[in-house]
Amino acid sequence: MKLGVCYYPEHWPKSRWLQDAQDMRDMGIEYVRVGEFSWSTIEKEPDQFNWAWLDQSLDVLHQAGLKVILGTPTATPPKWLVDKHPSMLAVNEQGQPRGFGSRRHYTFASLEYREECRRIVTIMAERYGNHPAVVSWQTDNEFGCHDTILSYGAADLAAFKIWLKEKYGTIDALNKAWGNIFWSMAYRSFDEIELPNLTVTEANPSHRLDFHRCCSDQVVAYNKLQVDILRKYSSGRDLVHNYMGFFTAFDHHKVGKDLDVASWDTYPLGFLDQEAIYTAEEKQTYLRTGHPDFGGFHHDLYRGCSNGRLWIMEQQPGPVNWAPHNPSPALGAVRLWTWEAFSHGAELVSYFRFRQAPFAQEQMHAGLLRPDASKAEAAGEATQVNQEIDQLASALGIARNELEALPSSGKVALMFDYDACWALDIQPQSQAYRYLFWSYRVYEALRELGLSVDIIAPKSDLSTYEMLVLPAQVTVDDELLAQLNAFEGVLLAGPRTGSKTESYQIPEQLAPGKLAQIMPLQIERVDALPDHTQLDVNGRWGQGKLKHWHEQIATQLPVLLEDEAGLPVLVGEQKRFYLGSCLDNSLLKTSMAKLAELAGLETTYLPRGVRLRERGNVIFAFNYSQMEKCFTPTYVGYKIESVIGSERLAPAGVSIWLKHKTV
Amino acid sequence: MKLGVCYYPEHWPKSRWLQDAQDMRDMGIEYVRVGEFSWSTIEKEPDQFNWAWLDQSLDVLHQAGLKVILGTPTATPPKWLVDKHPSMLAVNEQGQPRGFGSRRHYTFASLEYREECRRIVTIMAERYGNHPAVVSWQTDNEFGCHDTILSYGAADLAAFKIWLKEKYGTIDALNKAWGNIFWSMAYRSFDEIELPNLTVTEANPSHRLDFHRCCSDQVVAYNKLQVDILRKYSSGRDLVHNYMGFFTAFDHHKVGKDLDVASWDTYPLGFLDQEAIYTAEEKQTYLRTGHPDFGGFHHDLYRGCSNGRLWIMEQQPGPVNWAPHNPSPALGAVRLWTWEAFSHGAELVSYFRFRQAPFAQEQMHAGLLRPDASKAEAAGEATQVNQEIDQLASALGIARNELEALPSSGKVALMFDYDACWALDIQPQSQAYRYLFWSYRVYEALRELGLSVDIIAPKSDLSTYEMLVLPAQVTVDDELLAQLNAFEGVLLAGPRTGSKTESYQIPEQLAPGKLAQIMPLQIERVDALPDHTQLDVNGRWGQGKLKHWHEQIATQLPVLLEDEAGLPVLVGEQKRFYLGSCLDNSLLKTSMAKLAELAGLETTYLPRGVRLRERGNVIFAFNYSQMEKCFTPTYVGYKIESVIGSERLAPAGVSIWLKHKTV
Amino acid sequence: MKLGVCYYPEHWPKSRWLQDAQDMRDMGIEYVRVGEFSWSTIEKEPDQFNWAWLDQSLDVLHQAGLKVILGTPTATPPKWLVDKHPSMLAVNEQGQPRGFGSRRHYTFASLEYREECRRIVTIMAERYGNHPAVVSWQTDNEFGCHDTILSYGAADLAAFKIWLKEKYGTIDALNKAWGNIFWSMAYRSFDEIELPNLTVTEANPSHRLDFHRCCSDQVVAYNKLQVDILRKYSSGRDLVHNYMGFFTAFDHHKVGKDLDVASWDTYPLGFLDQEAIYTAEEKQTYLRTGHPDFGGFHHDLYRGCSNGRLWIMEQQPGPVNWAPHNPSPALGAVRLWTWEAFSHGAELVSYFRFRQAPFAQEQMHAGLLRPDASKAEAAGEATQVNQEIDQLASALGIARNELEALPSSGKVALMFDYDACWALDIQPQSQAYRYLFWSYRVYEALRELGLSVDIIAPKSDLSTYEMLVLPAQVTVDDELLAQLNAFEGVLLAGPRTGSKTESYQIPEQLAPGKLAQIMPLQIERVDALPDHTQLDVNGRWGQGKLKHWHEQIATQLPVLLEDEAGLPVLVGEQKRFYLGSCLDNSLLKTSMAKLAELAGLETTYLPRGVRLRERGNVIFAFNYSQMEKCFTPTYVGYKIESVIGSERLAPAGVSIWLKHKTV
Repeated sequence: MKLGVCYYPEHWPKSRWLQDAQDMRDMGIEYVRVGEFSWSTIEKEPDQFNWAWLDQSLDVLHQAGLKVILGTPTATPPKWLVDKHPSMLAVNEQGQPRGFGSRRHYTFASLEYREECRRIVTIMAERYGNHPAVVSWQTDNEFGCHDTILSYGAADLAAFKIWLKEKYGTIDALNKAWGNIFWSMAYRSFDEIELPNLTVTEANPSHRLDFHRCCSDQVVAYNKLQVDILRKYSSGRDLVHNYMGFFTAFDHHKVGKDLDVASWDTYPLGFLDQEAIYTAEEKQTYLRTGHPDFGGFHHDLYRGCSNGRLWIMEQQPGPVNWAPHNPSPALGAVRLWTWEAFSHGAELVSYFRFRQAPFAQEQMHAGLLRPDASKAEAAGEATQVNQEIDQLASALGIARNELEALPSSGKVALMFDYDACWALDIQPQSQAYRYLFWSYRVYEALRELGLSVDIIAPKSDLSTYEMLVLPAQVTVDDELLAQLNAFEGVLLAGPRTGSKTESYQIPEQLAPGKLAQIMPLQIERVDALPDHTQLDVNGRWGQGKLKHWHEQIATQLPVLLEDEAGLPVLVGEQKRFYLGSCLDNSLLKTSMAKLAELAGLETTYLPRGVRLRERGNVIFAFNYSQMEKCFTPTYVGYKIESVIGSERLAPAGVSIWLKHKTV
Repeated sequence: MKLGVCYYPEHWPKSRWLQDAQDMRDMGIEYVRVGEFSWSTIEKEPDQFNWAWLDQSLDVLHQAGLKVILGTPTATPPKWLVDKHPSMLAVNEQGQPRGFGSRRHYTFASLEYREECRRIVTIMAERYGNHPAVVSWQTDNEFGCHDTILSYGAADLAAFKIWLKEKYGTIDALNKAWGNIFWSMAYRSFDEIELPNLTVTEANPSHRLDFHRCCSDQVVAYNKLQVDILRKYSSGRDLVHNYMGFFTAFDHHKVGKDLDVASWDTYPLGFLDQEAIYTAEEKQTYLRTGHPDFGGFHHDLYRGCSNGRLWIMEQQPGPVNWAPHNPSPALGAVRLWTWEAFSHGAELVSYFRFRQAPFAQEQMHAGLLRPDASKAEAAGEATQVNQEIDQLASALGIARNELEALPSSGKVALMFDYDACWALDIQPQSQAYRYLFWSYRVYEALRELGLSVDIIAPKSDLSTYEMLVLPAQVTVDDELLAQLNAFEGVLLAGPRTGSKTESYQIPEQLAPGKLAQIMPLQIERVDALPDHTQLDVNGRWGQGKLKHWHEQIATQLPVLLEDEAGLPVLVGEQKRFYLGSCLDNSLLKTSMAKLAELAGLETTYLPRGVRLRERGNVIFAFNYSQMEKCFTPTYVGYKIESVIGSERLAPAGVSIWLKHKTV
Repeated sequence: MKLGVCYYPEHWPKSRWLQDAQDMRDMGIEYVRVGEFSWSTIEKEPDQFNWAWLDQSLDVLHQAGLKVILGTPTATPPKWLVDKHPSMLAVNEQGQPRGFGSRRHYTFASLEYREECRRIVTIMAERYGNHPAVVSWQTDNEFGCHDTILSYGAADLAAFKIWLKEKYGTIDALNKAWGNIFWSMAYRSFDEIELPNLTVTEANPSHRLDFHRCCSDQVVAYNKLQVDILRKYSSGRDLVHNYMGFFTAFDHHKVGKDLDVASWDTYPLGFLDQEAIYTAEEKQTYLRTGHPDFGGFHHDLYRGCSNGRLWIMEQQPGPVNWAPHNPSPALGAVRLWTWEAFSHGAELVSYFRFRQAPFAQEQMHAGLLRPDASKAEAAGEATQVNQEIDQLASALGIARNELEALPSSGKVALMFDYDACWALDIQPQSQAYRYLFWSYRVYEALRELGLSVDIIAPKSDLSTYEMLVLPAQVTVDDELLAQLNAFEGVLLAGPRTGSKTESYQIPEQLAPGKLAQIMPLQIERVDALPDHTQLDVNGRWGQGKLKHWHEQIATQLPVLLEDEAGLPVLVGEQKRFYLGSCLDNSLLKTSMAKLAELAGLETTYLPRGVRLRERGNVIFAFNYSQMEKCFTPTYVGYKIESVIGSERLAPAGVSIWLKHKTV
């Protein structure tokens, strides 16, 4: 459990650097990310390098005992480089090149730009690969930020043709897989293929899905190119990339496989304001803390990307500048977010940024220091967390650096599949339905029951879990089927599971496709509803409402919930269950509690806005509401010892307990 | 009264065709539409034809006793053809070509594409023109779908220049007609003319209206080209095109003149969800049946396009895929829609599609069969309708094929003018006002009174009507004036009637222009209101609200309704009346009832959601609501005999009676 | 106080002109604007001029005793001219040229187009510069209408490069001023600079602000070019341009310096409907009169642009055609608007237009005459105002033409800065915050207290004011600081004052920058709120709500209002005050009343919808509501004499009194 910060020495006079390093140390900061937007400072003119500033600032940081995460500067190529390779620009869905003047002005598919990346990363890695301060490298910055994954230019089309040829071999195979006999869309050769934008009406969903997969694979290859260089010249350092919140445009599991650590940039208030997932009421209630599951959902998701290792690369420290509205965090919220991250297994929480810049696009984005170098509110909260980490280690009777050994996995797994996300967004059938939103709401229901959850990739090892939820695992292939069949815990498959083949076709046996081999049922029809239409549900397991998506299930399995016409909504027996509709929060929670009970897991109904997490015998509780809440965790056969805080959780408050076996 | 289905043999293995044909027959299906998207299957490479599949499938259908409607495949030209003629693509208002990858990727104005159409239609017509199975041809498919009537490319500009030259002769005549002295818009020659898109602010409305007329005429010419070929090689077959709902971008009356039958594609749920005409409350109330007047309005409108002959080419059989939300129809709704169509004079109701395709864009669009060939809900409802047709024929004591002879016209005519629709959409003056919406609401009021309505083209024969409503007949020329003057029934002219000349200018004598010769009044000012502003109306004929559009009428005619300031709203005497404002539903209905009474027509106040229609002595009643409704039709001097259903109409229920003179 | 009208003789037969002139005289009209859209009538073919119509119509007007304001026709270049210089077209933010077919199809930066303007203006000025009828020239028409200030074409880029080079001298100076070290945005030369559109995410705000300034300066130069020619050939005539409402895209103060008179085009209903500034409730309440401060705000703003001289060039006379909805004005509203303008110092109110045109884009825009030449409602109201002017002059015992000598300035000044408007719109931090909207609401609060307000440019003379409000004076430089320091009245600085340097950077000492030298405080953090979040405020000066923008103020100054956490909201002492948040209308009014009291100004709480204004000893009252209101102005030591109307103000009513010292 370490603290870090993002720092831009190039923005400040050299004379200030030593003081900055000292201030960082005083707040308990150990890690400093540096360099990720500095290309034009390093290479102002082609092949003329200015290393002095970076050499010296790394030395200053090193001498102050700080560890450096060095960023490759490829998210911001200089103007001269763009002028040299105009075709490197991404092109938007309307066909317009996305020009220089901000950042991320490139497409991942550009081979010319990849060569430039190879050049600059090699030079940097050769120079700093063995620098004693450098303990880690960040590749590029926030892949896909500003909607740059799907690009529609000549470089993208060229990459797509190659990708398709590799996947399908023959054009007939592609035509068959896409169903191109429909609407006379058959191609005679791969050369005839175009990108799926600017068509008269929607393009073939198989076409769109393959294009999305191809674009995601370009990111993987782009990242891999940098990773390979860094491994060669800077072995032993942790390679990491910083992901974003609610961002699903590329497959983070695939990118994560090439990295050592997954990290992400967490801005709870900016995302609350900006995202359609949250209701108007949630936006108001959690205005100054963010939604209670925003942090947890992403911590658990990204922890599943790179062998369980998780960092927070950028943590919001105050008001930001880029959301539609940018309120101030509640008093204590920065501490709350930091501890929430640690409770989910983060090794590092790094604040963005050290000092607020007085110029350019992010001048209204707060830092730990204000532009005049005075300390902003968050500086004090970081300092407090630093002290509390010591307190926790001391209560556990271990050294501070041993805290990381605390286990972070839960007993409940939720499967998250980027491919499913793309597939279902392409044809949502009801605009009220979104894979990501539904998955998030399922996660929320589990977390409101006090469960610690792992969010896992499709083909993950399931052996450690007592309960597994597939919110909408749209494709079920033989390998997954075998895994599910072998799974000994309680399994819940949600609506749309098994509803498509890999090629985006309806399976021959209809949904849920191969899953029917272990859950005997068939989906006969889908009722895709507008947001305002909610249907009554009741049955053995409770009562409430369904909304957005409602499948007509034909089955002989026991019916646990049914709709007002008596048609099945939730069916199953033993340890295998199928849910054919999206349930409201309350009924979803009730159902999850039943499943958890069958899985032998203890649950608790937490007060609204409160969340709980366990790491080994450490219990963390968080209050995201604006009111004081009372909560004491109880476990059969355990007693509870308070470490930080108490059973009275202040607004934005945190409490930490240890649990000890009583017998 | 026959049933049909849309079928794509090319999507299924040959081995399945016989079984499919058998299944169709078992459901009572007589007609099968085939071929309309099959160009790339027929001609995979330029000039290399594959007829085998079509030969064989037509034979299979023929041998099973089915009749074929063969579609020309021109709505989906193959990729190679588009690559050969890139200028054939439509261009959107933003100037972007609308590319290959879905369907309808052509502009009607492209002479190159018309040549390709001439080629393929000629070849097909030569081959199948006298095939014994082929009883009808459908030209292309859904002209204008995906907003392809107005196209802004080089081919469109070329066509527009020719069209204008033909219309105006000299550029001075055009400048005068358009009022181009305004804003220095005068042209020196036809060569200088551009299309009315991408201007700094709105283009001249006369310019826009002429462009719209020109684009509509391109559709007429495009269709005529195919019709001429088909008449030559396949004489005696019914030529038909399938129109769409709420689609007014071309003049269906003009296209219809070249065809034998008008048909349309009716998707009551998709349109309810998608169309701005319906209120949020209507969208909720009629979620699973569609709005009660959706079917009727279009049946009556299109029946007026081709000498009274009407088919339903595509009838929604279950959830579709293309609306924002796609709920399931109510139990019985497919039967309800089918009978509603027959009650308005449809000769054929053909379901789209026979079997749900598991691939491509429409894979979530239901069919009579599911993708696995099991029967979907609608299959049973179609079968039921088939039996009920027999029942009706038997009750009438006639043969089934004599049912078509039942008259389908009403005694009330509503005039619908595509030219008026374009004109008023170009300058609505209040965004809350739309010609189509207002016409629909007038129709609704008439239908809620139990009246059977004909929707007629501007210059139609009026001699059979007792009552005529012009919702907003924007241009009144000498010919129409003479017709109206000669009309002996009750005439109501609505707001905006006579308010523009053919050139889109205000008439010299102001609105209602020439109409003032038979209704002495003048419109002095227009109050065009936002949606939330409703003004009180009362007077001799009732009380209620007006909204959207309110004219200040100067007249000596008797005032039947007036606004809160005492200004006239509805005026007239004898059999000629003028309404200067849009009334709310309730007052509109009251007013229509008064007019009907003056016309000697019997009316009835139907329960909410119930509609009634007569064909000769057959009375049909339909319940679009979610509740059971009680209704028995009564007619002075007649008694009623029940054939199907009773006076208790179930949700989505249908009842049919015969009326017999009692004396 | 004179009446005028906009007239298009070219639209009507010559035979009508004399009658028109006679009708104008009968209504009391003295001024006629002519010619501003007539280029293609004047010069139908290049260099072939038709002056006959203009010669003759000027003569007819002159002989009828009417004075002419002649418009240069450069807002509507003919088609042949555009074809000759295609690069003269403005280009929108999406990169699309904005073509011929309406008006304003040029960019101010086009040197080619400027040459054409020089040519046509010179020819016209030579011909009519000394015509006895011509008393004034209007340059072009409504600069910037249809969003044409910011243009993104080659001509604009060329102008921008020159402008930047002139401003910064070296590229390093620019890089530093813009903070281009951020995101590697540094340029190596001015040649590398691009326009700030079509970037991947938002461009640098300094880049955007400089581009906006450059575009505004293009307008200044464009106008100056015409002014210089007109001064040369038509000396002694008033040069004027007609501005628009709620339009801030160029600096009207800078343009105004080159002109003799500022005028604007006032459409109270169109703007009420169209502008986001107004709430739904206001849109409904003031549907037929416009918002009570719409006229006053703009009269006071534009009166501050050209040495205090103000005309209304276009006054709405009835329903217009261009707003989303176009209701009719209330009975009397045209008179109300006319008197409101005179009460704020307008020398002339000119109605747009004389006669409604029956053709082209504005055919639904009312005039004083209808298209058939009958008199519309406004003709009578204009006639009434004309008589009332006599009545007022007579009551004052002066000649009618001496009325203009009545003073029009107030004792309260509100500073309005176009540069601040651009700056804050570029980074609003909360989308609910807009500089213009907030300034308007401050003005509204002052006016609801019965205060007469001047809206002044940043560096204006302050010596005549008792009270000065800076709503959000974003940049405070040494000159302004010195002025404020020397100001002896009551000063209120609002939120965001002093928060940026001229280069769009946060000042070293943080906000309020240099202002802190005379108001010792510092802004530590900003809470930028969504619209629905309002925070409680209370303190010595009242209680209410704050919204949109809330600064955390660190200061030792006395706190007059504080938020619910006890943090300062309004601070100050003596005569200097700082407000850190946007207050709701009620608390804003209370606070302004306190400040006015400290400034020794009498205030009154006017009934809702009523406004008051003074010119010397003439008191005007206006009722914008739909109900009769009772109001009698009272002044300590004065008695009141009624001239027009009474203390009972009818809906849309006007009353005028004289005040006389009682001692």
